[in-house]
Amino acid sequence: MDRNAPVGIFDSGVGGLTVAREIIRQMPEEKIVYFGDTARVPYGSKSRDTVIRYSRQIIRFLLTKDVKAIVIACNTASAYALETVEKEFDLPIIGVIRAGALTAVESTRNGKIGVIGTEGTIGSGIYTEVMKQMNPQVQVTGKACPLFVPLVEEGLLHDSVTDEIASRYLSELKGRFIDTLVLGCTHYPLLRSTVGRIMGSDVTLVNPAYETAIELKGLLAERGLACEPGAAEADPGKYQFYVSDLADKFTAFATSILPKQVKETKKIAIEEY
Amino acid sequence: MDRNAPVGIFDSGVGGLTVAREIIRQMPEEKIVYFGDTARVPYGSKSRDTVIRYSRQIIRFLLTKDVKAIVIACNTASAYALETVEKEFDLPIIGVIRAGALTAVESTRNGKIGVIGTEGTIGSGIYTEVMKQMNPQVQVTGKACPLFVPLVEEGLLHDSVTDEIASRYLSELKGRFIDTLVLGCTHYPLLRSTVGRIMGSDVTLVNPAYETAIELKGLLAERGLACEPGAAEADPGKYQFYVSDLADKFTAFATSILPKQVKETKKIAIEEY
Repeated sequence: MDRNAPVGIFDSGVGGLTVAREIIRQMPEEKIVYFGDTARVPYGSKSRDTVIRYSRQIIRFLLTKDVKAIVIACNTASAYALETVEKEFDLPIIGVIRAGALTAVESTRNGKIGVIGTEGTIGSGIYTEVMKQMNPQVQVTGKACPLFVPLVEEGLLHDSVTDEIASRYLSELKGRFIDTLVLGCTHYPLLRSTVGRIMGSDVTLVNPAYETAIELKGLLAERGLACEPGAAEADPGKYQFYVSDLADKFTAFATSILPKQVKETKKIAIEEY
Repeated sequence: MDRNAPVGIFDSGVGGLTVAREIIRQMPEEKIVYFGDTARVPYGSKSRDTVIRYSRQIIRFLLTKDVKAIVIACNTASAYALETVEKEFDLPIIGVIRAGALTAVESTRNGKIGVIGTEGTIGSGIYTEVMKQMNPQVQVTGKACPLFVPLVEEGLLHDSVTDEIASRYLSELKGRFIDTLVLGCTHYPLLRSTVGRIMGSDVTLVNPAYETAIELKGLLAERGLACEPGAAEADPGKYQFYVSDLADKFTAFATSILPKQVKETKKIAIEEY
């Protein structure tokens, strides 16, 4: 495996860019190939079988770009597909769930943890399962928030309607006296201020995107796969973006989220992989 | 063509069931094969090419069920794909746009018509184009309402949040003094009372699902393709439902919308057609 090869990152759409952003911040020397499955977004309301099939196709595509490791930057795909695909493919693959779960278990003082996410992620019970394995004492309450993704995509990040919907979704978690809340969907860090205000300053918000970037950094260092400093500096293809639909719309959104301007996004026929 | 063969109906998901409901009401003797593309929903935010490719796959699937005619019960697919697929396939295919457009043009008194729909339908300009062909004098104002579908799917049909979002979306149309409004997405008839209250009783709401069922009835009669009375009466497979994902969830939703209980929905691999 070439240590100067790129890291592959994929998500159902644009949400995984919050993970790419953290990886670029924490590991500015790494090359990245990002794939957003914008033709088949959202994954949160799809079945396990379908999400596994889609994940396999995307990994096969990323392998054609000679990636050295893959980050599944989508909570639903991490919940449904990680365990299956890490057995099937011969390179390191990490999801966004374990790192976030570990931070939550280590952060909680009263043992009461909340998780918000899509119907797929919450329905899978994956966060509860992983956190209970780490510490059987913790009490985990999950809450699906299906309107958060469309509200973010409509740009209503700071809006009375988003406040009202968030208050409804979060009231059950407030009633459970949680002291730690996992933002279990890659879109949700963009609603961080709204969620933080409603939950109050005593509740610690955990952003799995941030924790996953730390996990990736450790993994690459441990396996001798971290990029040599400066190796990708002059590479015009340092950051590559691919989608399954609507490349121009993706480019605009990515430019608004990432620290650097995204020049080009290529559309590929993901069903053929 | 066998006049007692079923009618094929397809949509990106559950929305087209409002069209199936009208067809069942107006033509209780007809057999129906419905396909909902629940793995790839929504179509409203996808590109023209992708929607055409998906529509072709679905039509090839419906042809394996020996349908005598096809109704594209999805505004986005009607906008993007109808013109292409009606040239490619050798059976009658109708969409939901023409019938709704014609009713709106015939209903308006002041010539000012509004259309609400997904980003795909409104961005395509198809309603404006079709209505201008019917009467070049009409003024058409389109407005995309991207949160309506997620709000309906979250069950918030009568809710203060839906009222607030609808008021924002519709304020521009109220400012244009339209007297006729086309509900240009198959989910929207489920928000009819909210939209009607906000627009006021002077504005006529046009439901393309209803008008499309009338068009289908006329088409079948004209071509000698109407089912013989009683021919399908004892057929246990009179109404067949297929989806690309989450069959049980679809069955529950369909039972809540249709006049008869849906016993079974089959999941098929639509990408293979």
